Amino acid sequence: MALTAEKLRQALPLVQRAGVDAWITFVRETSAAGDPVLPLLLNGGLTWQSALIVFSDGRTVAIVGNYDADPLAASGDWSEVVPYVQGIREPLQAALRGATTVAVNYSRNDVMADGLTHGMFLTLQELLPGIELRSAEEIVSELRSVKTPEEAERIRQAIRTTQGIFEEIPRVVRRGMSERDLYDHIQARIEERRLGYAWDKAGNPIVNFGPHSMVGHGVPSPEIRLEEGQILHIDLGVVECDYSSDLQRCWFVGDSIPDEVLQAFACVNSALSAGAQALRPGARGVDVDAAARGSFVANGYEEYLHALGHQVGRLAHDGGGILGPAWERYGNTPFLPVKENQVYTLELGAMVPGRGYLGLEEMVRVRTNGVEWLSDRQLSLPTLSLAR
Amino acid sequence: MALTAEKLRQALPLVQRAGVDAWITFVRETSAAGDPVLPLLLNGGLTWQSALIVFSDGRTVAIVGNYDADPLAASGDWSEVVPYVQGIREPLQAALRGATTVAVNYSRNDVMADGLTHGMFLTLQELLPGIELRSAEEIVSELRSVKTPEEAERIRQAIRTTQGIFEEIPRVVRRGMSERDLYDHIQARIEERRLGYAWDKAGNPIVNFGPHSMVGHGVPSPEIRLEEGQILHIDLGVVECDYSSDLQRCWFVGDSIPDEVLQAFACVNSALSAGAQALRPGARGVDVDAAARGSFVANGYEEYLHALGHQVGRLAHDGGGILGPAWERYGNTPFLPVKENQVYTLELGAMVPGRGYLGLEEMVRVRTNGVEWLSDRQLSLPTLSLAR
Repeated sequence: MALTAEKLRQALPLVQRAGVDAWITFVRETSAAGDPVLPLLLNGGLTWQSALIVFSDGRTVAIVGNYDADPLAASGDWSEVVPYVQGIREPLQAALRGATTVAVNYSRNDVMADGLTHGMFLTLQELLPGIELRSAEEIVSELRSVKTPEEAERIRQAIRTTQGIFEEIPRVVRRGMSERDLYDHIQARIEERRLGYAWDKAGNPIVNFGPHSMVGHGVPSPEIRLEEGQILHIDLGVVECDYSSDLQRCWFVGDSIPDEVLQAFACVNSALSAGAQALRPGARGVDVDAAARGSFVANGYEEYLHALGHQVGRLAHDGGGILGPAWERYGNTPFLPVKENQVYTLELGAMVPGRGYLGLEEMVRVRTNGVEWLSDRQLSLPTLSLAR
Repeated sequence: MALTAEKLRQALPLVQRAGVDAWITFVRETSAAGDPVLPLLLNGGLTWQSALIVFSDGRTVAIVGNYDADPLAASGDWSEVVPYVQGIREPLQAALRGATTVAVNYSRNDVMADGLTHGMFLTLQELLPGIELRSAEEIVSELRSVKTPEEAERIRQAIRTTQGIFEEIPRVVRRGMSERDLYDHIQARIEERRLGYAWDKAGNPIVNFGPHSMVGHGVPSPEIRLEEGQILHIDLGVVECDYSSDLQRCWFVGDSIPDEVLQAFACVNSALSAGAQALRPGARGVDVDAAARGSFVANGYEEYLHALGHQVGRLAHDGGGILGPAWERYGNTPFLPVKENQVYTLELGAMVPGRGYLGLEEMVRVRTNGVEWLSDRQLSLPTLSLAR
């Protein structure tokens, strides 16, 4: 079954559970400003105002501009495709006659369930007087985050490809190469293979050499050069067949790893394990984060200034519940229950004074009794010998 | 000057003219759901809730998550970069103390000025109690649509590249090749050159062979094959250095062009000329469209079911005022005054019974006294001889 058919089938019980008459994805000019849920519902884009509707009675209706109708009808995914020329008002009102409550794609918490722009919300209010517009957050979040077997397999493939790129690193590094050089090398590999970037290309991969590097979402420096004694850290995510990876790996440059680096490596890994142990269906992300955070702090490290993990899917940061602390900017997302078949990162790290950033990031799938590691965990810290 | 610096400088008088204290672009996780205005303001993306603020007093302030601060500060474009860790509330309220009216990115009419999602609008209302949030449509539409010299030059380059691809068509076509074969060939050329697609790749290029083809935004058919007597029609747009082209070209397959095809070609071209003549600063798009539409209908052809033209910039359909009829779905966009240095398409066509779709699309820049043709107009219809 095509992915879109698989996801439309998954949507129906979610719409029914939400207690609404219909769920509407309302978009226009999607090559400019697409709702993130759109690629789950169709291939390609839509030009004029378009309404993709899943009714609680099982009908799926697409109301679209006349030039967009043929490919949608050809997909076979929709029980009805309604083309229009001059305006969507009449066919939309006709389709929703009798409906009283409709779910639409806005959410303060989940960016992936917040694809309806404010201008389009105002338009929908005006087009559908007397119909209550509710947030479709629960429908969209679950549809997106609970992965079908096909989606999980595509994510596994993106991870395998990313790990393959990491495996080449020891053969690629040279004394005196800059962060920017290594970043350029990795991007060339990505483009040769026609892969996509799981986040903005300007900061993907993140490459950090030693203690003076800009950690976080910074761009790689053309000034900072590789030398003995540094930690080399990379954060890389690719997109393959529309699904993403997001992994961090570390190496030590030189023959003999200082104790404080080994200790940081061990404590990062222990904290990841503590988080993984707490991750299971029904757990709250805030508690999973606390398990890892507590382990790390108990070992004498500073709290990491981000969440332990986020969901991964079509993008590296794929929205929905996160494994994070109760900070304002995370909204309610750390309090959402973890569900089976969601895919998360587990990631954290520490600056080792004089050495650089020691950070690891793995990917896991939530199964009935705990996690399945999708990535091959980095359980030892390799050393790199620099060629000239 | 970098493009972002050029555009930020262009924004200030627009903010002042709008009569607001500040203009805020409010975003999060921009790799998932970016405001279309964002790439005019910065390179790369932003992860946590971020506010990019242009004050009417000339200050430009970026309030962003701590991991995003360094590259923004390094750009030199912002008079102040304010990083935060736990939440944007405090720094945002501090920056806007004393402000009473703020423009934000929503618009019912202009998709490119409608980048604020409804969830983010609700968040901003809650973060800024007592401040009136107005539509920034006028600011964003003009900032985006009035092209700087650097932007115009990038568009010219994308057009040159597209015309180069069209020039190869006579050497590429073979009897019996399918629409899909030609589409694949053109996409391979696009990818070899590392160009982008000016609209969704699934329907770019549009390739139509003869009278049975799916015209509009359809996907090319693997069944419909090239043969003598057909019109071959292509609609192609590429992105080069972040700016787009959008052009349509036609060929006749065979040695001798039937009169009805020649007549359609001439009448399409006359109608384009009539539209171009009406296009100048201060004109309304609805009148420009009417000039072309009137010419075409007067020559006995059916009205085309779309607008005569749309603006082109970072995308093929780049928002703002259009050259179109007063149809519901176009909202107020046909009534906005045309401005100097905007870039438009001029496009229309007709089905020629038994022959196929004869459609042309050119690109023009609005200058003080009329249009500058950016594309080399197609003023004659070439014939194609099919090799086996």
